[in-house]
Amino acid sequence: MSNPTAAILIIGNEILSGRTQDINVQFIAKRLAARGIKLQEVRVVPDVPERIIGAVNELRAAYGSVFTTGGIGPTHDDITSECIAAAFGVPWELHAETFAEMQAYMLPEKFNAARQRMATMPRGAVPIRNEASVAPGFSIGNVHVMAGVPRIMQSMFIALEPSLPAGEPIEMRAVYGMGVMEGAIAAGLSAIQDKFAQVDLGSYPFRQGSEWGVAFVAKGTDVAALEAAIAEATALLATQDVTPVQGEPGGA
Amino acid sequence: MSNPTAAILIIGNEILSGRTQDINVQFIAKRLAARGIKLQEVRVVPDVPERIIGAVNELRAAYGSVFTTGGIGPTHDDITSECIAAAFGVPWELHAETFAEMQAYMLPEKFNAARQRMATMPRGAVPIRNEASVAPGFSIGNVHVMAGVPRIMQSMFIALEPSLPAGEPIEMRAVYGMGVMEGAIAAGLSAIQDKFAQVDLGSYPFRQGSEWGVAFVAKGTDVAALEAAIAEATALLATQDVTPVQGEPGGA
Repeated sequence: MSNPTAAILIIGNEILSGRTQDINVQFIAKRLAARGIKLQEVRVVPDVPERIIGAVNELRAAYGSVFTTGGIGPTHDDITSECIAAAFGVPWELHAETFAEMQAYMLPEKFNAARQRMATMPRGAVPIRNEASVAPGFSIGNVHVMAGVPRIMQSMFIALEPSLPAGEPIEMRAVYGMGVMEGAIAAGLSAIQDKFAQVDLGSYPFRQGSEWGVAFVAKGTDVAALEAAIAEATALLATQDVTPVQGEPGGA
Repeated sequence: MSNPTAAILIIGNEILSGRTQDINVQFIAKRLAARGIKLQEVRVVPDVPERIIGAVNELRAAYGSVFTTGGIGPTHDDITSECIAAAFGVPWELHAETFAEMQAYMLPEKFNAARQRMATMPRGAVPIRNEASVAPGFSIGNVHVMAGVPRIMQSMFIALEPSLPAGEPIEMRAVYGMGVMEGAIAAGLSAIQDKFAQVDLGSYPFRQGSEWGVAFVAKGTDVAALEAAIAEATALLATQDVTPVQGEPGGA
């Protein structure tokens, strides 16, 4: 059960103001689980240097990998890259190879100061080249710096993925029943959790149309134990005069 | 500019595993902005007592209000309430009034130990009664403890809202242009930000169909300054041979 660990740091005034609905966490979380990396924390901080620097340093000390999203574009509010340099205590300087690549890609009159800034990185950073954008993300130490725009972030994450540590895949099995109230089965479910200590067993009420249901979700690396726990949870649901359905509500 | 501050703490294995797409942050963030409260941080932590207790204590010391979501149901994985008691160093005990209300609402054979647990709160907590659920959330000090299920959380937040501090509403004005590249206008935009220091001016690339665009978003409490900044940003977009559109892409 010693899966590698990770955190996500979202640099995003637009999330904190409610302007933007984040969808990056779920994408990264699912890919990490499939790779056997345990996502242990997510933080969202504003575009303020000391907040970014402080969070990067706390998270990179606490977890195996840190993934940041947001703040690496060409505008004045894109300050992630220089904050990462400050967090690592290294100079923030032109990355010659990236500069050359971007220069080759653009008309000279388009490669202005703002765009040249996107070729500037903390010393020692390794670019995350990707298919969505000529301006790369970068990795330094255990910190991986990616764009906030989901399409570009996803392309960067996919490019980065093969270089990440891997653990035993964290599998999920689920069962649900409509019309079941959590309060009615809580004691039985707790007994199942006690029996399968290596399984992380969660209970999630949800609504489908006008009806409430409960989903039990078992997570862990021991597939046999997951399936045994879900079999018992299925039997528990059946005591409530409902027809348990394997899997997640709404498919999956 | 001394708006009250806030943080959100999501207690949620289901978010960290990628099972669930959080939508609570955006709901709370928008309501806080309308009330003039500045959301300064969001954290997601797993259902682990020391992680919850540590985060609650850090956040309640750092911000004016803390809103937690998740982990107050009747099942074994619902541990938020006792962790809040531990964070405040107070006993976790039956809340007599809530117990009586739940007892009156349910058939005696349904009011089992698991459901009685939902009437247990940190000593000194004030229930957040709401329309969605007979089991309330609660407030203690500056920490407001709410359900994770969006429908129930929203009902609790709405019930809580009138008792929250209020500041000058944080307003937003926006303009966007399709086909504009951030890199082309970054210098001009930076000059506008410098001119209107009391405005928080962000630049957000987005995709609509197969085309990229850029939205400029001005936030702050000084509406005249927001509108002046957006007027200049509109003129900046017009230099790019596009027709600027007031407001957010996709309406709003």
